[in-house]
Amino acid sequence: MRLAELSEHSGVPTATIKYYLREGLLPPGRQINATTAEYDEEHLRRLRLVRAMIQVGRVPVAKVREVLGHVDDDSLPRTIRLGAAMWALPQVPEPENEDEYVQAAHREVAVLLDQLGWENAKRLSTISPAYRSLVVVVAALRRLGYTFGAELLLPYAELMYRTAVLDMDNLERYPSEAEQIEFAILGAILNEPALQALHRLAQEEESARRYGFE
Amino acid sequence: MRLAELSEHSGVPTATIKYYLREGLLPPGRQINATTAEYDEEHLRRLRLVRAMIQVGRVPVAKVREVLGHVDDDSLPRTIRLGAAMWALPQVPEPENEDEYVQAAHREVAVLLDQLGWENAKRLSTISPAYRSLVVVVAALRRLGYTFGAELLLPYAELMYRTAVLDMDNLERYPSEAEQIEFAILGAILNEPALQALHRLAQEEESARRYGFE
Repeated sequence: MRLAELSEHSGVPTATIKYYLREGLLPPGRQINATTAEYDEEHLRRLRLVRAMIQVGRVPVAKVREVLGHVDDDSLPRTIRLGAAMWALPQVPEPENEDEYVQAAHREVAVLLDQLGWENAKRLSTISPAYRSLVVVVAALRRLGYTFGAELLLPYAELMYRTAVLDMDNLERYPSEAEQIEFAILGAILNEPALQALHRLAQEEESARRYGFE
Repeated sequence: MRLAELSEHSGVPTATIKYYLREGLLPPGRQINATTAEYDEEHLRRLRLVRAMIQVGRVPVAKVREVLGHVDDDSLPRTIRLGAAMWALPQVPEPENEDEYVQAAHREVAVLLDQLGWENAKRLSTISPAYRSLVVVVAALRRLGYTFGAELLLPYAELMYRTAVLDMDNLERYPSEAEQIEFAILGAILNEPALQALHRLAQEEESARRYGFE
């Protein structure tokens, strides 16, 4: 398809597509002659992914380029490729210093991973931003005087594990590894807000079941 | 306790506490004489909540005042009080227009709520920002060419319902309704990032279990 059709199928204006091409977020089309290039389904898929990251996820262009670099690097093992793509996405901010609360939180999260038997997550803990985020949140709660210990986190972690199994099952519906990794990124951008919304809806439902509207 | 002790117990500088007092985010202490006021445990609890909202949740001061207004309004039924406090917190941005995708998403979410039997959430749907957020995300996915239908959302919603039951059980450990509502707000600010982090950790674990590190 031509640029105009790519724009029509994706709903992305041609000027924006040209910008993405210049920024290297979209691979160039197959040049037919000096002024015309041909694009295919893969361009359309990539364009949608870029659009989702920029418009819905508000990911900066440089980050998008970094994420796509991981998506396209098939020299890496799949777990690392998946992780690297997700890890480039926005996370909870880092704490300024390693105070006593952060240290206590580290110990708490380590106990949690042991109780869960999440050997792989433990192995990834030194490089995983998700692990880091969890430590930051647990430390923030401790600093506020709330002890959010492993025993309180455990049932949540088990439900999140079941959620992750659903995620991976959905991912595996896509035939190629590249598509799976693309869908994983979309998932991080769109499924997480969807999950959060479902969670809050469920809280409303349960609150009303327990306390009614009186 | 005096202002200095309140500062020491909370870790919040006295200048910041004075600012919160001026802004009405913290009720005034009991005046002992012209220059000294006395603060109690309730001040400390409120101060921690305000601190969490501003520093961890990055909630603007005017919003904090609005949320606290709902926390303190015991003329409202508990479900509404809980909801109103949570609903003042940041949400997924609203879509600019009610296009065909938003309309289709509305129908999809309505089907989902019917299948789940969430009668109360359905009843709250016209005023609930969580409902609105879910519609926005489903519409965004549709616009990108992904059909995220009720059948795909259903198992996620069921896991989120179990998560919400855990939330409410944890909430009910607190003796007073005011404390429960305060903890619910902290939950929205801190448990949601914690859940997100646990979810990503679980994805890493499951990805490594399925694909290893090769």
